[in-house]
Amino acid sequence: MAPKYAPSLRSRLAPFLLFLQIGFVVVYYFYIEIESNVNGIKFSNFYPVFQDLNVVVFLGFGFLSTFLVRYGFSGSGFNLLIAVIGTQWALLLNGFESWYYRGKIRIDLNSLVVAEMCTASVLISIGAVQGKTNPVHLILMALLEVFGFVLNEWLLQTLLPVRQLNFIMVLHIFGAFFGLVLTWILCRTESFQGFEKEKLDRKTGLFSMLGTVFLWMFWPSFNSILMEERRLSAVCSTYLALAVSYGATLLLGPFSVMHTCWGCRCRGFHASDTLPVGGHDNWTGRSCCVNRWIPIPQGGGQCMSVSVYHQSTFKPCLTNQNHMLFAFECHDTCSVLSTHGLPGLLGWLIQLVLQIQQCDDHTMAIRFAVFHIDALLITLATSLTMGFLTGVLLKWDIWRPPQDKKCFDDQAFWKVGEHLQQQEMSAMNFFSFV
Amino acid sequence: MAPKYAPSLRSRLAPFLLFLQIGFVVVYYFYIEIESNVNGIKFSNFYPVFQDLNVVVFLGFGFLSTFLVRYGFSGSGFNLLIAVIGTQWALLLNGFESWYYRGKIRIDLNSLVVAEMCTASVLISIGAVQGKTNPVHLILMALLEVFGFVLNEWLLQTLLPVRQLNFIMVLHIFGAFFGLVLTWILCRTESFQGFEKEKLDRKTGLFSMLGTVFLWMFWPSFNSILMEERRLSAVCSTYLALAVSYGATLLLGPFSVMHTCWGCRCRGFHASDTLPVGGHDNWTGRSCCVNRWIPIPQGGGQCMSVSVYHQSTFKPCLTNQNHMLFAFECHDTCSVLSTHGLPGLLGWLIQLVLQIQQCDDHTMAIRFAVFHIDALLITLATSLTMGFLTGVLLKWDIWRPPQDKKCFDDQAFWKVGEHLQQQEMSAMNFFSFV
Amino acid sequence: MAPKYAPSLRSRLAPFLLFLQIGFVVVYYFYIEIESNVNGIKFSNFYPVFQDLNVVVFLGFGFLSTFLVRYGFSGSGFNLLIAVIGTQWALLLNGFESWYYRGKIRIDLNSLVVAEMCTASVLISIGAVQGKTNPVHLILMALLEVFGFVLNEWLLQTLLPVRQLNFIMVLHIFGAFFGLVLTWILCRTESFQGFEKEKLDRKTGLFSMLGTVFLWMFWPSFNSILMEERRLSAVCSTYLALAVSYGATLLLGPFSVMHTCWGCRCRGFHASDTLPVGGHDNWTGRSCCVNRWIPIPQGGGQCMSVSVYHQSTFKPCLTNQNHMLFAFECHDTCSVLSTHGLPGLLGWLIQLVLQIQQCDDHTMAIRFAVFHIDALLITLATSLTMGFLTGVLLKWDIWRPPQDKKCFDDQAFWKVGEHLQQQEMSAMNFFSFV
Repeated sequence: MAPKYAPSLRSRLAPFLLFLQIGFVVVYYFYIEIESNVNGIKFSNFYPVFQDLNVVVFLGFGFLSTFLVRYGFSGSGFNLLIAVIGTQWALLLNGFESWYYRGKIRIDLNSLVVAEMCTASVLISIGAVQGKTNPVHLILMALLEVFGFVLNEWLLQTLLPVRQLNFIMVLHIFGAFFGLVLTWILCRTESFQGFEKEKLDRKTGLFSMLGTVFLWMFWPSFNSILMEERRLSAVCSTYLALAVSYGATLLLGPFSVMHTCWGCRCRGFHASDTLPVGGHDNWTGRSCCVNRWIPIPQGGGQCMSVSVYHQSTFKPCLTNQNHMLFAFECHDTCSVLSTHGLPGLLGWLIQLVLQIQQCDDHTMAIRFAVFHIDALLITLATSLTMGFLTGVLLKWDIWRPPQDKKCFDDQAFWKVGEHLQQQEMSAMNFFSFV
Repeated sequence: MAPKYAPSLRSRLAPFLLFLQIGFVVVYYFYIEIESNVNGIKFSNFYPVFQDLNVVVFLGFGFLSTFLVRYGFSGSGFNLLIAVIGTQWALLLNGFESWYYRGKIRIDLNSLVVAEMCTASVLISIGAVQGKTNPVHLILMALLEVFGFVLNEWLLQTLLPVRQLNFIMVLHIFGAFFGLVLTWILCRTESFQGFEKEKLDRKTGLFSMLGTVFLWMFWPSFNSILMEERRLSAVCSTYLALAVSYGATLLLGPFSVMHTCWGCRCRGFHASDTLPVGGHDNWTGRSCCVNRWIPIPQGGGQCMSVSVYHQSTFKPCLTNQNHMLFAFECHDTCSVLSTHGLPGLLGWLIQLVLQIQQCDDHTMAIRFAVFHIDALLITLATSLTMGFLTGVLLKWDIWRPPQDKKCFDDQAFWKVGEHLQQQEMSAMNFFSFV
Repeated sequence: MAPKYAPSLRSRLAPFLLFLQIGFVVVYYFYIEIESNVNGIKFSNFYPVFQDLNVVVFLGFGFLSTFLVRYGFSGSGFNLLIAVIGTQWALLLNGFESWYYRGKIRIDLNSLVVAEMCTASVLISIGAVQGKTNPVHLILMALLEVFGFVLNEWLLQTLLPVRQLNFIMVLHIFGAFFGLVLTWILCRTESFQGFEKEKLDRKTGLFSMLGTVFLWMFWPSFNSILMEERRLSAVCSTYLALAVSYGATLLLGPFSVMHTCWGCRCRGFHASDTLPVGGHDNWTGRSCCVNRWIPIPQGGGQCMSVSVYHQSTFKPCLTNQNHMLFAFECHDTCSVLSTHGLPGLLGWLIQLVLQIQQCDDHTMAIRFAVFHIDALLITLATSLTMGFLTGVLLKWDIWRPPQDKKCFDDQAFWKVGEHLQQQEMSAMNFFSFV
């Protein structure tokens, strides 16, 4: 049965991916060189943190999405695909300048890390459109969003006197708003009544919990990876903020009607990405010392504000209204807005206030505030514009979006239920029982 | 349906957790400072081991408890909650002395590690009361047990000339006996016939296996983390002892009727915590070299003795008697006695014998034995007393213990079965089918 | 019910494992010493990579095999058993020379790593006979295969002027062909119609996906662990090749009818073991620099060739012929041939061609090619011979192979379905519902 509609969903993937991969390989052939003379000790010190980042990007984000009962394979499998494509693409884009001046792109652990960071913004956006797209959509989105992210970085460094980009903060805001605009444009009528197959259950929830715990554990590595110095402060403050915010999450939990495994996931996780702020404040090149207690109330505060938001937004869905529909008709599968978007904005704001407080004279404070707000506006503008353009492109029917009833279904892409037995070959409708 | 009883279980959590978290944040605000000048290389070398410890504490212990088919979320979720609360509390208690003399508590990776070690004793105790408590119970228990553990440490260092505490050995014995006394006091009549929902199945067993494998892999890190020198010996001997004891576990397995995934879990795991002994013998500050072959037969020996115990205790339960009831009417969910308690005692004994053997003169040997036995007695006394006090406190009805039929059930705390679909909103009794 | 046949399957395990473990402990007692004076920094740098290797060997390979719906426990549990026995045995065999000359076998992290590498070849072979063997078979296989692997190493170093063995390449080819010959000899008539219990489903597929992702992430560590220098190049090129090959896998996927989670697993994974070639070319001690782009098309190329092979071999099985039967009547459960065997051969070939290309004069090129081909032939010959001998030994009825209907069933070895409740004790046929 599966083959009747499946080819239409998959027929675009092969030529597109073939073209893309051959293109990458050809470009890599001519322009990439792998760094060879390297400081052994520095490499050994950096390598474990690099592996922690891999766990966050490939495992953590991937298994977060396995909570959908019929979409676990796609959740983790497509996450890996997009991470892989996005990283290759980001390596090229980030190396553009070096290619322009030296004719070669040099690759070492650090450039891999930066490329994975760019890709992480795509993995965040995917949360918003999870289940309602096919792999071709996701790949196009990866290409455009990584481009947008690198463009945003370039704009910030060109228009503002920003010396070192604060990846972590840009990452969450850029990814979340890109994803939201995209899902708003791709919105379909089905979204208003909920998708038939958008469910979760106990076991898939545990897989999602596993992803969450991995994200939780390695978040200090993720936050501190690009810091040369003061990594200890970043690690400790992230760790403490994570601890406080998990406590605050469960504290609000029982009040909330939406205290599902899914809600828990969102909050446990969002809790974690609020923290960058604590560790990172070398925005605009200023090097102020990390205030010792900031991350802690902040982790808690962000968590609470977001939980309250959760309640007020999601509660209606339980009282028989359309759920998971924000005012703007966004069907946001993984709650990207409340997990990454709002905490990111709140974190940005808190950081602004704190840094202004620390300034000695007024001129400096005002200049700083202007820079800070400009950077936010540029990021939001780039994110929304690129999201809009991507959405318009993806609405094109040529990419064959999945039919409504094939949304949130692994079976459109993977032959999951196939029992490797002859006598059951005929009974392929195994999944109706599961 | 859930809402009818659930609020009663959860109503105490929010104010209690709110009070606790605000208290922590206020104390942290005034008295915590994060170490800032740090040796970069030392940090980089220590950081991966710190992450291994996190995997053991947050993931390993958490997923060990997912074997209960309806209690997986609580098993892993509450483990994370307790780990987080316990670590914050232990940071404060451990820093008490430094606060007294310097007015500040300084936090670095090392203090986080010591705090997580104290918390690990709580995570061990939780195994004994798993499923029969609510989160408020667990938090109270965490506060009291961490206090007891730190008190025990202080007693040992004050009463005995112990220079450096052997955390690993105290940890298992303290945690196991605390948990046992607690579950003995909290024992209810239901325990005699078994709980309706205390079940395991294949898939949840695999999650538990996952936790076990992670514990197994990172146990050498856990054992060696607080050793400055001779870490290589500790790692290698723990590794070999783990290898031998897993072999010995499966060796006895087939004889045993109780060779369930659960039994396997217990043994595979207990196997692993028998080993501290091999690596750690700086008890009372003596620095003798690690005997090369000791951990190996010891791992095997402890494993066997415990397996025999397992058989003699658990066999009756299969011949239709009350199972998992020790002579003292303890309903010990995760077999904490045989996983941590007995192997801990055995390890202690073996170490005593070995170290006395290595003493040259009799006076020294006798002095050493007296110290050793005193330390054990002090630890046991503190553990049992604190466990008793905690038990009496927790028996108080004000904490609203879960009713018998809500034990071992995620649904009392998490909205797990909720399908995110309108048409199924009415059919919340989804779980009767699963 | 279980007890009726189970004892016969398990009765041989206990005495055999007892004898083996006591033997190991006795030998260790007399001849092992753990390295004590060690360079602290070197240790700290190596330890995280050692842990990555542990994750690959104990977790990755173990959870790869959990895709079989009724064989998950055995898949991961026996993997751990064999890894443990194999490592102890390999430590002794690898230390034979040192024992001969110095009377002692010295153990440090490096010797543990080499021992685990030898064991990895066994874990590869097990894939071919997964589900059709009992633990005694697997242990015997581990003993003989590790012996064969060490023998092969010795032959290569004695017959050819190979200074440093290229473990990674030998590993896959040796393991795959050993397993194939073994499964060919152990082939039973049942294999022609498929086993009743050889199935997979969604949830177990996700466990397998988890194993795959861990293998994927830590494969760069696995590939580079034995390299003293140029680890960065090995890591980066492995990483890029993994990325390209995962893309290529999904590219071919949609064309293939067999694009199951299982197929995905195989390819995603095989993709990863094609890469050694990129990083490793110190075969025969030559030290040529790593060509910058080679691993990338190679990863893709191998992936494609193997996918095509997959299709042509497995397609018939879907058109109602006997599936998973190669021309030679091998029932290869985990597709070891296409996952490890063919990519290994292809990688070997590509490396030969590339290195010959880089040679300056003809004599050198011819000498090199002869060495290279000799090494391959020796490895294949040892592998096939040892596999044949092992197969003949394992066919002996004394080891009690599982009956056809007990193949691929956890219940023959583990009491999985046992509910820990009295009232359900009588209803042990729980699994008919699951």
